[in-house]
Amino acid sequence: MRSEFQFIRNIKGKYGLGRIGDDCAVVPKDPRTDLVVTADLLVEDVDFRLDWTSPESIGHKALAVSLSDIAAMGATPKWALLSIGIPECIWHGNFVDKFYDGWFRLSRRHKVELIGGDVSRTPDKIVIDSIVAGEVRRGKAIMRSGAQPGDSIFVTGELGGASGGLSLLEARTKRRVVSRKQRELIDRQLRPTPRIDIGKYLSRYEVATSMIDVSDGLAADLHHLCDSSSVGARIELDKIPVDGNLSAIKKENYDFALGGGEDFELLFTSKKTIISNPKLPPISRIGEITSNVGIVELVENSSILKLPRTGFRHF
Amino acid sequence: MRSEFQFIRNIKGKYGLGRIGDDCAVVPKDPRTDLVVTADLLVEDVDFRLDWTSPESIGHKALAVSLSDIAAMGATPKWALLSIGIPECIWHGNFVDKFYDGWFRLSRRHKVELIGGDVSRTPDKIVIDSIVAGEVRRGKAIMRSGAQPGDSIFVTGELGGASGGLSLLEARTKRRVVSRKQRELIDRQLRPTPRIDIGKYLSRYEVATSMIDVSDGLAADLHHLCDSSSVGARIELDKIPVDGNLSAIKKENYDFALGGGEDFELLFTSKKTIISNPKLPPISRIGEITSNVGIVELVENSSILKLPRTGFRHF
Repeated sequence: MRSEFQFIRNIKGKYGLGRIGDDCAVVPKDPRTDLVVTADLLVEDVDFRLDWTSPESIGHKALAVSLSDIAAMGATPKWALLSIGIPECIWHGNFVDKFYDGWFRLSRRHKVELIGGDVSRTPDKIVIDSIVAGEVRRGKAIMRSGAQPGDSIFVTGELGGASGGLSLLEARTKRRVVSRKQRELIDRQLRPTPRIDIGKYLSRYEVATSMIDVSDGLAADLHHLCDSSSVGARIELDKIPVDGNLSAIKKENYDFALGGGEDFELLFTSKKTIISNPKLPPISRIGEITSNVGIVELVENSSILKLPRTGFRHF
Repeated sequence: MRSEFQFIRNIKGKYGLGRIGDDCAVVPKDPRTDLVVTADLLVEDVDFRLDWTSPESIGHKALAVSLSDIAAMGATPKWALLSIGIPECIWHGNFVDKFYDGWFRLSRRHKVELIGGDVSRTPDKIVIDSIVAGEVRRGKAIMRSGAQPGDSIFVTGELGGASGGLSLLEARTKRRVVSRKQRELIDRQLRPTPRIDIGKYLSRYEVATSMIDVSDGLAADLHHLCDSSSVGARIELDKIPVDGNLSAIKKENYDFALGGGEDFELLFTSKKTIISNPKLPPISRIGEITSNVGIVELVENSSILKLPRTGFRHF
């Protein structure tokens, strides 16, 4: 059974598609600028559930996930297309208006202009395709493929919160939520914050050698980055910035931080010492790139184990 | 009950979206070039049926409908994104490979590069979002909004074939098809030909004042063009180039030609006398633009009637 990643690798090889395989495709715009473009498909009951979230939050998240891809290139988002397929029964309600309200609230914050898209009926499920284009100085998009042995590995913010929130939703505790921490975990899952400002900051100072957003989980995305760069990595468990709110679920939270997806933080490498900017979320150094191609090692106390792509969780 | 068109008008007004409402959005690329971008959502059992068509033809059509939008701007297609949502059971078969084969066969003909997209699972239906970008000389994209009273109205090729083919498919006569004409009508529905060459020809010689592709049907699309240009139109029934293969269905075929969609011919206006180029499909003059804002008149023999948006058919 082939995975989505294997399939994409196959068609890349079969049809010679050089621009596929990063957070965004990069195409030349003008002599000083490259255009970066991304598309993200969100499907009801696969990527979101109507009984877990609001139409506004779905609109927010549809844009946020694509903005996160733009951030991962160090680019500035510019314009978007939004294709939405809606079942007849939902079309007649106020879902679509509230969905666009959520989308536009986030788009205004990042000055993203909606320039097109499509609206269609679907037989029974909502489907959203979010396309965002951004701009970056020519040749300066931060790719997954630039990491080199010896580079430090950094991650922004905290990890594991989004999947912690998902586990609360899956346990159907939403209506019983009382604690602030639980609410924040769920919010982390439903209304992610794209790290546009940090992406631009890293791009401006040209300090990152490679970058990816943490959408599939730290373990999986670090593997993606290592694959693209033909390198390996060694990270230290106790350096991983675990979401403080996870204490509301249980004590051992590294499984969320390593295996859980959708935190939409930025994972990047650099030859420099990165000093956090007080105006931006914290940046943590979690390890370094090695020449052990394709191998991600996890240092726990003084033992080293090979970290699988899935982290510690088996999805 | 609001239509898709009313909804798009609403969000255009509510959020001040100036670039929405043509076949493509136009964004500046460099001092000499504009980028035109379009997205088309195709949903299983709404836009196509697996028992009527092949995976290759779905791949072909997914790209063709977007190329037709590029053609309608007089632009040259350059790159594409393809987002596809697939149910688990279909993912395990060869649908996706054959779909991409059909897509790439057409993309190679028009030198369109696939640069990205997304692949996702869906609960039960296939969903495709086809995004294509093209280039046109700065300020020279042919919009729907440039028609002026007195301009001649032209249409490329022949009309009604695609909806004739659809009617054959709906009547489930596919397996009983014997005649060449019936096969060609069905092919017109399942494997449309985008009029890229004519679009570029009209753009190069700067002869078209406005243009739209015939995707919703001649009556509907002429109304769209008149709405955008704040003009009216008068067309002559006996000048409409009806698809010759429709004789295989019945004698009165103007309902298909006026009301049927998906022919993906180009409907455009010009102040000039357009002479067909022998290397390109024929171009017919079917009437002229009037100052009767929003009114499309149909001249039949010597009587004039007001043509509704739906043509003669009630969908």
